[in-house]
Amino acid sequence: MIEPRVFPKEQLREFTARVFAHVGVAADEADLAAGVLAKADLRGIDSHGVARLGRYVNGLKQGTMKATDQSRVIREAKATALVDGGQSLGQVVGKKAMDLAIQKATDTSVGVVAVRNSNHYGIAGYYSLMALEHDLIGVSMTNAGPLVVPTFGRTSGLGTNPISLAAPAMKEKAFVLDMATSTVPRGKVEVYNRLGQPMPHGWAVDETVRSSTDPARVLNALAKRLGGGLLPLGGEGEELGGHKGYGLALMVDVLCGVLSGAATGLQVYADEKKPDVGHFFMALDPTAFRPLDEFRRDMDRLARELKDSPKAQGQDRIYVHGEKSFARMEKFRKEGIPLDPKVVDGLKKIGTDLGVAWSA
Amino acid sequence: MIEPRVFPKEQLREFTARVFAHVGVAADEADLAAGVLAKADLRGIDSHGVARLGRYVNGLKQGTMKATDQSRVIREAKATALVDGGQSLGQVVGKKAMDLAIQKATDTSVGVVAVRNSNHYGIAGYYSLMALEHDLIGVSMTNAGPLVVPTFGRTSGLGTNPISLAAPAMKEKAFVLDMATSTVPRGKVEVYNRLGQPMPHGWAVDETVRSSTDPARVLNALAKRLGGGLLPLGGEGEELGGHKGYGLALMVDVLCGVLSGAATGLQVYADEKKPDVGHFFMALDPTAFRPLDEFRRDMDRLARELKDSPKAQGQDRIYVHGEKSFARMEKFRKEGIPLDPKVVDGLKKIGTDLGVAWSA
Repeated sequence: MIEPRVFPKEQLREFTARVFAHVGVAADEADLAAGVLAKADLRGIDSHGVARLGRYVNGLKQGTMKATDQSRVIREAKATALVDGGQSLGQVVGKKAMDLAIQKATDTSVGVVAVRNSNHYGIAGYYSLMALEHDLIGVSMTNAGPLVVPTFGRTSGLGTNPISLAAPAMKEKAFVLDMATSTVPRGKVEVYNRLGQPMPHGWAVDETVRSSTDPARVLNALAKRLGGGLLPLGGEGEELGGHKGYGLALMVDVLCGVLSGAATGLQVYADEKKPDVGHFFMALDPTAFRPLDEFRRDMDRLARELKDSPKAQGQDRIYVHGEKSFARMEKFRKEGIPLDPKVVDGLKKIGTDLGVAWSA
Repeated sequence: MIEPRVFPKEQLREFTARVFAHVGVAADEADLAAGVLAKADLRGIDSHGVARLGRYVNGLKQGTMKATDQSRVIREAKATALVDGGQSLGQVVGKKAMDLAIQKATDTSVGVVAVRNSNHYGIAGYYSLMALEHDLIGVSMTNAGPLVVPTFGRTSGLGTNPISLAAPAMKEKAFVLDMATSTVPRGKVEVYNRLGQPMPHGWAVDETVRSSTDPARVLNALAKRLGGGLLPLGGEGEELGGHKGYGLALMVDVLCGVLSGAATGLQVYADEKKPDVGHFFMALDPTAFRPLDEFRRDMDRLARELKDSPKAQGQDRIYVHGEKSFARMEKFRKEGIPLDPKVVDGLKKIGTDLGVAWSA
């Protein structure tokens, strides 16, 4: 195996921004979208990082993603707003919508913003994390193309519909939950496929709806819509709670799709010309309930208590959500971001095709 | 096996209300608390129904639950409020707090109410369902005594911390997610224990933190705090997403415990004199985002699309969350609520001990 090479975050971000700018995105928005992708890599969620640049370039070229921001607020009240994304870049729309939720939370203690007619917005955690800079609790969800098979179903009908919630702590790292509501996201199946390794049972079912360890077969069945797909958190059937993961995915679609009037379920990305992805953002001010220091102190207490509790055999650490990503960020900022050689080749090819230099 | 006998909901509700009243609860609050328990039975969540009456009677007698409502709003803004439950009955506090969230959503499109110093409030779904009567989306969460082992941990540190969200539909049943964030709630382990049956792997670990199918051993280890307990949704370790269920449980504790200043994690019920349970309620008005009819129509479309999609082999139906409970309600309203004979004996004993007639 070839060791992945590492790259400074700034190099990846700048290259990505130049690519975005080259296909017509305004400089500050190109920089923002590039920042969202690079942050995913920095946090170790490489399935949502610069490796996806090609899909954005294609979307921008084909016009399913608009290079200039065409989003607008079409309904607004004190604590709420509905944003039409105007098919702009999901990152640009998402950032604007979360900024609005934060502003509303600053004014009214809580802000809820639903978004329709958007595109893939990257990692859900990017937007919930924004709230931390304002000492707010942040929530971010999005629907996505149908990859997940509902309990007792045979074909995928819901996206991996992630949920993210971030809450500030004091000395401890902030709590940052950022999870697909499927057992694993598609990116993980793609990694196993790239490595030619069998997957654990419980991640996916093939077109016969039998649990499958063959990533190539599952990806092929999904791509051709032959049946099967990813399993909801909790796996197959109801015995281990698969109906709960399915229910969480559905909840996300209610809040992102139905509430905003975006596409839902099978309709997300169904119209090639209009992906119509929906998002849901919320910001909540803890000081509406108690002094910030008390809130942060109790966040620490809860985290410390879990981390200090006895470990299972063979384990030396209990994590609180976000910790691993913060540790990776620190490491990758120092040492650079590791990228799979195939990803690097892909990025360089994008650069060559467009005439954008790989390093400035 | 003795067939469980069935009882009209009203009989159970009235008996339960008389018992509550007998131990000092005001008539209307006794009726409310009894209604919450009977509704759980009616929806088929018998672990949270009248079978729990004894625990409430004990709590009221010992004074950890106050018979008269001592809850009060101690901080309030347009869209938010903090309620101190004053150790009153969780149902009384919960109903009041959700009413407040609903009122705020009616005024400001969204209402968020956090509650501290409360008690066990019954099924989370009772409160989210309240929002449907006002054509609102309802959210209800609570923390609970520590039963769930965090990923890589050896002892339970978080409650089964349920999440409920209800959203109105048009011709379809309302979407009602009401789920513990553990693979199964403790009640399910207790059912297997009563039946003397082995549990599936993936529900719980014993005091050695090995996956256990022995319900008695797990319950004993939990009761004596020897180690082990219920597994988060997704099971052991991270392979099948156990860290996600653990993260959801932690998220619920952040919103119910930390936000309100209630106990969190191991501290919930740790002080025998002050359980200090925390809840989180939210109501959200869909009409702040789009016309109600459009919202309801799209709820139907999403539900129908899933239900009409191809079924897995051997399955003839895909469910949307809430459907099973609505069907049970209809059946049980007509035929009566089935109760385990042991539960009936327990109820009758409570009646005899207190001098409350089993049937009016």
